[in-house]
Amino acid sequence: MPIEQKLAYLGLALPQPLVPPASIKLPFHWVRVHGDKAYVSGHVPQHVDGTVAGPFGKVGLDVTIEAAYEAARLTTLGILASLQRELGDLDRVTAWLRIFGMVNSARGFVLQPKVIDGCSDLVVQLYGPVIGAHARAAVGMAELPLGVPVEIEAQVAFKL
Amino acid sequence: MPIEQKLAYLGLALPQPLVPPASIKLPFHWVRVHGDKAYVSGHVPQHVDGTVAGPFGKVGLDVTIEAAYEAARLTTLGILASLQRELGDLDRVTAWLRIFGMVNSARGFVLQPKVIDGCSDLVVQLYGPVIGAHARAAVGMAELPLGVPVEIEAQVAFKL
Amino acid sequence: MPIEQKLAYLGLALPQPLVPPASIKLPFHWVRVHGDKAYVSGHVPQHVDGTVAGPFGKVGLDVTIEAAYEAARLTTLGILASLQRELGDLDRVTAWLRIFGMVNSARGFVLQPKVIDGCSDLVVQLYGPVIGAHARAAVGMAELPLGVPVEIEAQVAFKL
Repeated sequence: MPIEQKLAYLGLALPQPLVPPASIKLPFHWVRVHGDKAYVSGHVPQHVDGTVAGPFGKVGLDVTIEAAYEAARLTTLGILASLQRELGDLDRVTAWLRIFGMVNSARGFVLQPKVIDGCSDLVVQLYGPVIGAHARAAVGMAELPLGVPVEIEAQVAFKL
Repeated sequence: MPIEQKLAYLGLALPQPLVPPASIKLPFHWVRVHGDKAYVSGHVPQHVDGTVAGPFGKVGLDVTIEAAYEAARLTTLGILASLQRELGDLDRVTAWLRIFGMVNSARGFVLQPKVIDGCSDLVVQLYGPVIGAHARAAVGMAELPLGVPVEIEAQVAFKL
Repeated sequence: MPIEQKLAYLGLALPQPLVPPASIKLPFHWVRVHGDKAYVSGHVPQHVDGTVAGPFGKVGLDVTIEAAYEAARLTTLGILASLQRELGDLDRVTAWLRIFGMVNSARGFVLQPKVIDGCSDLVVQLYGPVIGAHARAAVGMAELPLGVPVEIEAQVAFKL
């Protein structure tokens, strides 16, 4: 089943491009393609209309693990949306390579992996254990742009 | 116009290699080349003589956004200097791929993108929108070496 | 001398795969291979039996620089163990490319480079200045999984 069809089957919609607050410029690309690699910019949780999705604040204090897991899942849908716009077809992705998951962490919050599972689980569910296999880090940041609880950077390979 | 000429036209000088404090070793390379890719180490703001440039401290508390933007710009000149020493000629860069911008962030400072624009804006000004296009993340760190407000890691492709 | 023999000569043993606490899943690979590149997940300090090694907490407050240097060295042995399991033979590594060293940093701790030297020094000692040359960043995180003082992500090239 094509990835787009799997997404529809799961009831998941890909969001519009990020609509940042007026004060924020975006002098970069969401996906930078070179050779057979796509470098994916740090994405944040988005609503389907492209606006930044809450909740905001620090995981372990303002945001629960469960809500942060969901934020990582929303962030991943944003990454998939950017890849689809760049590659045209999500089945062109032949290998997820690297996922770098950043969690806006309250003092003493040390379960970053459980948050970024919201990304890894969706990638593996959609792409399976071979294409979806990836290296990962899940770490605790002091702050993230706009106060989002999660930001994820990634790298994938695709067929030319 | 060659990049080096553009820099001169803009009145921008590339700094000498970083001169770290006596207690700090540098058991790595500022640029690691492999195939047609250059992996750029985390750079910090430098004066032209290679010494670490202030201001120091946390953006949003000790350092203003404007000063941090300028620190990101100085950091980028250090990256360009390292690339020039490694590649011989900055016009060998064929694609900026990834910029990972780290901001030493005070509690509650969430405008990391406006700081790292000091890097993105200079890269795009010098290289234009095609070669200069890059994926980016701009995130908030708890601390950075020597108390610098900004550190930037990058990856570029170049012609062999 | 083969890398495995050098390790034995130095009295260094490679650890078993990480044994996480029961609550933590690992829905990713410790090493993701693609083409001639290996993307190495964020590793943490491990005992030889694979359990997470202390001390825990923030460098500069709970953990000394010396103990954190040793934690970075243990982390590197875990990376080498993962590479050996994936590649079969550590001498297949032809180039260390990128080391991203993350230090769980107390307020005001700014000597992250001295901590991550525990990784760089071992890589260069084992692989020499040509294969072991690498780009590096050493930065301060707000929190790391399970409270470890150090986490290291990496990328290497290897012969097919």
